[in-house]
Amino acid sequence: MDRPVVPLGRPRTERADAKRNRLRLLAVVREMLEECGAEHVTMDALAERAGLGKGTVFRRFGSRAGIFKALLEEEARRFQELVLSGPPPLGPGAGPAERLIAYGRVRIGFLTDNLAVARAAMDRDVAAPAVEVDMTRLHIRMLLGQADLGVRDVEGLALQLSAALEGPLLLYMASPQALTDARDGGAMRLADAWQDLVERLFRAGPEQPPRGPE
Amino acid sequence: MDRPVVPLGRPRTERADAKRNRLRLLAVVREMLEECGAEHVTMDALAERAGLGKGTVFRRFGSRAGIFKALLEEEARRFQELVLSGPPPLGPGAGPAERLIAYGRVRIGFLTDNLAVARAAMDRDVAAPAVEVDMTRLHIRMLLGQADLGVRDVEGLALQLSAALEGPLLLYMASPQALTDARDGGAMRLADAWQDLVERLFRAGPEQPPRGPE
Repeated sequence: MDRPVVPLGRPRTERADAKRNRLRLLAVVREMLEECGAEHVTMDALAERAGLGKGTVFRRFGSRAGIFKALLEEEARRFQELVLSGPPPLGPGAGPAERLIAYGRVRIGFLTDNLAVARAAMDRDVAAPAVEVDMTRLHIRMLLGQADLGVRDVEGLALQLSAALEGPLLLYMASPQALTDARDGGAMRLADAWQDLVERLFRAGPEQPPRGPE
Repeated sequence: MDRPVVPLGRPRTERADAKRNRLRLLAVVREMLEECGAEHVTMDALAERAGLGKGTVFRRFGSRAGIFKALLEEEARRFQELVLSGPPPLGPGAGPAERLIAYGRVRIGFLTDNLAVARAAMDRDVAAPAVEVDMTRLHIRMLLGQADLGVRDVEGLALQLSAALEGPLLLYMASPQALTDARDGGAMRLADAWQDLVERLFRAGPEQPPRGPE
């Protein structure tokens, strides 16, 4: 059984009706996003569409950016559940290399799918949700531990690999073409490059002591 | 012969006396840093020590942060010269893996040596000097090209490796212990992890088509 990765989102003590309410609001937000894009999702429009008072929506999300942040958190929680207990190769049951590759591929897909939402969630009032970067490092760390690559510094390698996954992804997501790219464009190239990197690292075999000049 | 990496700092048309003046001021800044630390380097103190009017120092650097920014640029230019035409393994003449390892090690040393200066250079008026991150990617790209690893996406791997080098380094530099660590503490671990990563990647041999499940 995998250890839990990082606590995400609101505490588990949320009341059942509050949770139902929140999920229903988020479902409405998703509908609005699909129908008319992020720019038309406002506090007023959401309240009207959901048949709720604006005060209720405001208490729930605090601001327009808060709507998108809540949506991202909900998606991130689903993603984490898939990683922890979903079907392989993302979930348990596949080998570490296969799971590492699947993690990168699904994460890249998750972020590029949610790009418009992620951008809308970043304003001055609400911090960008960065918790997943730490989730990436911890998950990679766990899988590297299972793989037993014979690496001197597993923590160091986990940090390098999270940066190798998240860094190019952040650069890509900040680029102008990311919003217009088809999924099989830049994002797919990132996913292929990630798979190549992981396969190469796992192919190399254990470290070779002693180390001298090449 | 390596191609030039990225244009750094002021144009080459700087007049000889202006350059001499600037280098002399920077030498004074370095003395002050060694003797009493970054917090004592102010526009007034620098002008007095250099025997110049405060107006001259102001015109040259614009602000206190500008002093540190100019110092960083000068150091970055030196570093780049060493990469492009210094002795191997950092400069030309060694194999690509050896040069990659040396690049990471010297870059980590450069940034940690200049940590206090880099922090002092970041204020609201002066953007942080980020140009070296692009230098890293381009240099890694060139060395990977020489290495002929049989990689499908050399650009992608270069981006991943720059992130794997720069990401953990940025995290480390932002950490509280970075300022008090001895050089052979965290920075040395980063350098070792970088060397391990590069050695492992080069050990793996060419990509293996076709790709199937593990």
